[in-house]
Amino acid sequence: MSDTALDVSGWTCPAPLRDHPRVVMGHGGGGALSAELVRHVFAPAFGGDVLAQLGDSATLTLGGARLAFSTDSYVVRPLFFPGGSIGDLAVNGTVNDLAMSGAVAAYLSCGFILEEGVETATVARVAEALGAAARAAGVEVATGDTKVVEVGHGDGVYVNTSGIGLVPDGVDLRPQRVVPGDVVIVSGDIGLHGVAIMSVREGLGFEADIVSDCAALGGLVQSMLAVTPDLHVLRDPTRGGLAAALNEIAAASGTGVVVQEGRVPVPEAVRNACAILGLDPFYVANEGKLVAFVPREHADAVLDAMRAHPLGRRAAVIGEAVEDHPGMVVARTGLGGTRVVDLPIGEQLPRIC
Amino acid sequence: MSDTALDVSGWTCPAPLRDHPRVVMGHGGGGALSAELVRHVFAPAFGGDVLAQLGDSATLTLGGARLAFSTDSYVVRPLFFPGGSIGDLAVNGTVNDLAMSGAVAAYLSCGFILEEGVETATVARVAEALGAAARAAGVEVATGDTKVVEVGHGDGVYVNTSGIGLVPDGVDLRPQRVVPGDVVIVSGDIGLHGVAIMSVREGLGFEADIVSDCAALGGLVQSMLAVTPDLHVLRDPTRGGLAAALNEIAAASGTGVVVQEGRVPVPEAVRNACAILGLDPFYVANEGKLVAFVPREHADAVLDAMRAHPLGRRAAVIGEAVEDHPGMVVARTGLGGTRVVDLPIGEQLPRIC
Repeated sequence: MSDTALDVSGWTCPAPLRDHPRVVMGHGGGGALSAELVRHVFAPAFGGDVLAQLGDSATLTLGGARLAFSTDSYVVRPLFFPGGSIGDLAVNGTVNDLAMSGAVAAYLSCGFILEEGVETATVARVAEALGAAARAAGVEVATGDTKVVEVGHGDGVYVNTSGIGLVPDGVDLRPQRVVPGDVVIVSGDIGLHGVAIMSVREGLGFEADIVSDCAALGGLVQSMLAVTPDLHVLRDPTRGGLAAALNEIAAASGTGVVVQEGRVPVPEAVRNACAILGLDPFYVANEGKLVAFVPREHADAVLDAMRAHPLGRRAAVIGEAVEDHPGMVVARTGLGGTRVVDLPIGEQLPRIC
Repeated sequence: MSDTALDVSGWTCPAPLRDHPRVVMGHGGGGALSAELVRHVFAPAFGGDVLAQLGDSATLTLGGARLAFSTDSYVVRPLFFPGGSIGDLAVNGTVNDLAMSGAVAAYLSCGFILEEGVETATVARVAEALGAAARAAGVEVATGDTKVVEVGHGDGVYVNTSGIGLVPDGVDLRPQRVVPGDVVIVSGDIGLHGVAIMSVREGLGFEADIVSDCAALGGLVQSMLAVTPDLHVLRDPTRGGLAAALNEIAAASGTGVVVQEGRVPVPEAVRNACAILGLDPFYVANEGKLVAFVPREHADAVLDAMRAHPLGRRAAVIGEAVEDHPGMVVARTGLGGTRVVDLPIGEQLPRIC
């Protein structure tokens, strides 16, 4: 709990936040509650043109260089899980945010918040995983910081990474460029990361079948941009899953999105686990997948390029941008019905990343 | 506490860490224990030439631009204190790390780790303070992230900021450039931040007299560089205080440092508070001060420029770099004696920033 020495009663809570005088887990879920916090608390406080882009990373120009800049804190629990660790996530999550701007990640910062009493060996294993993931992604850890907090004020290891990378000339990826007719492509099977975490955390025993998809997508993105720099937008469906990613793009672009439910690649094991857990795979976090909105004339060639890359072998066209229902995402079901795919409120599974 | 699903017993603990199989508060103190963690855990895991500089910020070239890049997490307790807040610290601390490279800070990232249950109004007040401090420092918050952790796994609000800035041509600030004969200048009164935090935290009642010096030093540094780009090294004496800053420079430069104890500006109120608390002002954190190692021929002009700036009015020459006792800092006392000023082990006051 905070112990403020200052009276904060002078602050006027904006109407949308009045239902939440205190922060709830969902404010960190990447859904509607997170968006309210950004829109009504952070954006007005910080101002600025670059933040107003509200993408996964900011694109800015400094010293003549066109850079992408992004940050994420990682609080995943447990620290090690099938297919990765907080160290892998801390690299791949930030590298992927940069990649969604089309940028080639170059340098990372790394800030640890350690809880007093955590084993030094655990910290070392996290650091080793982080270093190995950075080498695999071709990015260098350039600067760091360590803070320690008392027992009961942390959870072993939290990590923040921020990243900078160069945006290639001619690349301009943002939801405002989406137009009706754009083809929506997902790079592969969805739901693996969230279900892997849930499984190990709750001891559900799916570990043998379901491994996190945690991976760095920079190479896949560059192979797509080699087909054409004229992709419209990329997004990695992390917290809030495919549903949140598509809703953010629909809202920011002002187009509708139609998804053919049967075309979305959901592994059998994820489907079964979600059925048992009462989860919808569309809302489960991924850490090695992307969604692309591609001009129709380039869609086939981009899909081919994705399928030729190890991280895009199961890429699939899952839908399109449409003029109807602007800002809204609907799924066509196998039986010919439609359902609205809402922005999640909070998150089905907290502390997934 | 960490709950690792992975056996970490395969890790061989380097000898210097064997006294600490678990992390203690001092590992976050910016002293000898922090240095051990960096040297034996993080540096080997991450590798890389840039990290090996081990400065307050990294200097790197990207897209033809010469950039400084730095990160810090802020876990100060309480969130609001006389003279500032975690929001002010999060801006000024990172801006100052960049300034110590001579860089003009341009953009910040901002990653919040919120504890479930913290008042939304408190988060908003922190954000407002952060935004105001950013505007005052002339830096833009470009990108952000929010995570929420359960009650008992945080402390209201933690913030990480990372910053990027441009390093002017001809500026090359690093301890390796220090030579015997360099003049050591401190920009003003030391000890204010640490004692202000301690006072409010422990209810000691010094608040009326002692206010944190938290401030952004970019302008002061640029006014010094306007005299000559040939300053040798700058360091902001935060965690571990003046003692840690001087020791780091002595160790990295391989020169000795002599400080005239009586010339170091210590306010009466800080001196009294330290006497009561059993602290040494040389080891207390500052958040709006810098130490400069300046070639002797430029020292007078640089001192004049500092005193002409609002944040350097009480700048003072406090000592010099010497050939004797390489890597060691000694203080000459008023009575003609000398004492060794050691690198602190941990930190006198944890969670000061």
